[in-house]
Amino acid sequence: MTEVRISLVGYGVVGHGVVEVLERKRQLMGEIGLDLTLVSVTDHTGTYLAPDGVVAKDILDHRTLEGVANSDMAAREVFGSIDCDLVVEVTPTNIVHGQPGLGHMVDALSMGKHVVTSNKGPLVVDYRRLKDLARKNDVALKFEATVGGTMPLISLIERTLVGNTILGIRGIFNGTCNYILTRMAEEKYPYNHALTEAQELGYAEADPSYDVEGVDTAGKVAILANSIFDMDVKYGDVEVTGITGITPESLILAHKRGYAVKLIGEVPALTVKPMLVPLGSPLAVGSTLNAAAIYTDLSGTITVTGLGAGRIETASAILSDIVSIYRGNHVDAQRS
Amino acid sequence: MTEVRISLVGYGVVGHGVVEVLERKRQLMGEIGLDLTLVSVTDHTGTYLAPDGVVAKDILDHRTLEGVANSDMAAREVFGSIDCDLVVEVTPTNIVHGQPGLGHMVDALSMGKHVVTSNKGPLVVDYRRLKDLARKNDVALKFEATVGGTMPLISLIERTLVGNTILGIRGIFNGTCNYILTRMAEEKYPYNHALTEAQELGYAEADPSYDVEGVDTAGKVAILANSIFDMDVKYGDVEVTGITGITPESLILAHKRGYAVKLIGEVPALTVKPMLVPLGSPLAVGSTLNAAAIYTDLSGTITVTGLGAGRIETASAILSDIVSIYRGNHVDAQRS
Repeated sequence: MTEVRISLVGYGVVGHGVVEVLERKRQLMGEIGLDLTLVSVTDHTGTYLAPDGVVAKDILDHRTLEGVANSDMAAREVFGSIDCDLVVEVTPTNIVHGQPGLGHMVDALSMGKHVVTSNKGPLVVDYRRLKDLARKNDVALKFEATVGGTMPLISLIERTLVGNTILGIRGIFNGTCNYILTRMAEEKYPYNHALTEAQELGYAEADPSYDVEGVDTAGKVAILANSIFDMDVKYGDVEVTGITGITPESLILAHKRGYAVKLIGEVPALTVKPMLVPLGSPLAVGSTLNAAAIYTDLSGTITVTGLGAGRIETASAILSDIVSIYRGNHVDAQRS
Repeated sequence: MTEVRISLVGYGVVGHGVVEVLERKRQLMGEIGLDLTLVSVTDHTGTYLAPDGVVAKDILDHRTLEGVANSDMAAREVFGSIDCDLVVEVTPTNIVHGQPGLGHMVDALSMGKHVVTSNKGPLVVDYRRLKDLARKNDVALKFEATVGGTMPLISLIERTLVGNTILGIRGIFNGTCNYILTRMAEEKYPYNHALTEAQELGYAEADPSYDVEGVDTAGKVAILANSIFDMDVKYGDVEVTGITGITPESLILAHKRGYAVKLIGEVPALTVKPMLVPLGSPLAVGSTLNAAAIYTDLSGTITVTGLGAGRIETASAILSDIVSIYRGNHVDAQRS
């Protein structure tokens, strides 16, 4: 049995999901030889230390750690003072400066701890530096959850399509945009009406610009370019057009001619824009789904579809990354 | 560098693909630390032995090994007399008695050699025995290419969705049926007309019953039930309805109401039958595509789509299985 001591940084929606999933999957993990123990949780209000393992029910009902924290240590102090092997970083994304996640990741990797994250910001802002730090300290940096949520994409390419050369990836990486475009096409709603519906259902934020202007998708394109295509891309290198200018009339016309309109991110082309995809083709999926078509030299086109977000779904992608580190799938280590 | 000495048994369409792909990917495999050397090729006419490695161009232009073989050894004698670590079994499928593949696999596993195959027959007829033999001899039995060709399904579940409990799988596992149903819906063709077109294009056999009666799909359902759900299922345990009774009128009516009709195999339900799937949902893909929706407890529904057949595509799935054995992904070994 391999013991893995985990520090969690960030205790929002995804953080709660991670605590819940680690608890639910304790037995299954034991069956594959992994004893995953959550030894600390840190948010902006403080740290909850539990060297023998966090008991999920003691903290899950609390929205933040306020009143639960038994220490005022910040993440860096936690990594330096307690016995932990791996850091799960799930603080909020900022794609301009990457903080506070970037600092947490630099600290953790420098101290020889594996990092698993759902936080896009640090990877968009400073991917190369983080990857080099991981290599230098012989630890893993895993981020499946940053692109397409629970939809397996990076791991699918690294582990399952390993004999292939990847020629390109084209995908729907934002569930909010997909929902709005789907409803505009189905119900002939104008853009603003579909957006309001998405907001009422919790699929879109009060300020939706991050999603509908294509910013979120562009961040994912940058991460794929850096990780799969070994490029050195920042957010500003991606050419972006959002969905705010699309009319229901154009969607209806496209549908009549056998096409759906989707907001598509493309690598290595580094573009985000509304594109026509043939109805009945694997990218023509509706609702809040994400999808990615992977173009390969041997296997043709492989498409994968799944939910792009969700508390438990994102935590599941994080769990899968953790398992892969300890089951010999750590690509960098293997390749060296 | 790990040297892997490979014996290939079966030299039809897929066998040729394997020879070609091993040659094309020699350098890439070297970069990940694998020296894959093909040391023998056997078909019903004899064996071509090349202890220093088969040179692809020496045999690729020959449809069989007749006139090329330098030995009359059968597969079993080859395994017993030459230095090889892994057998790729790609003889034609027979889902009644599983031969000759079943004998080849039993021999190879008993002699302590890993087996990678695209041959459904042996796995439908005697899965339990083969898996036990592999376990007893501490070798791997890998068969991604048997279900959905190049579409990653078994490996996706074993490697990427590892934290999940798999609740069920529902999929399109036969490209011939999907092509026929797609053309009937698109062009309002009657069944026989669409079948003839598929035969002319090489998508359907002269005797199409194996595909259109659902036999092929049922074999794949049995393999998934045995491998993913740990059941003990034979072909006869699957309830099967094919597509020969479907009319274009029913497809058009379904389309008007927002559905496509697909031949769907389902596990653990053990059924194969035409079913309605909503247009715009991930299983509503056309042409010769295969697709599988994987229902999980944590990640929701993940759907994967790809080409179900093809020489290079199938060989690519075989290569991916080979790599997984030597990169620590051998699940049985890891779990013990």
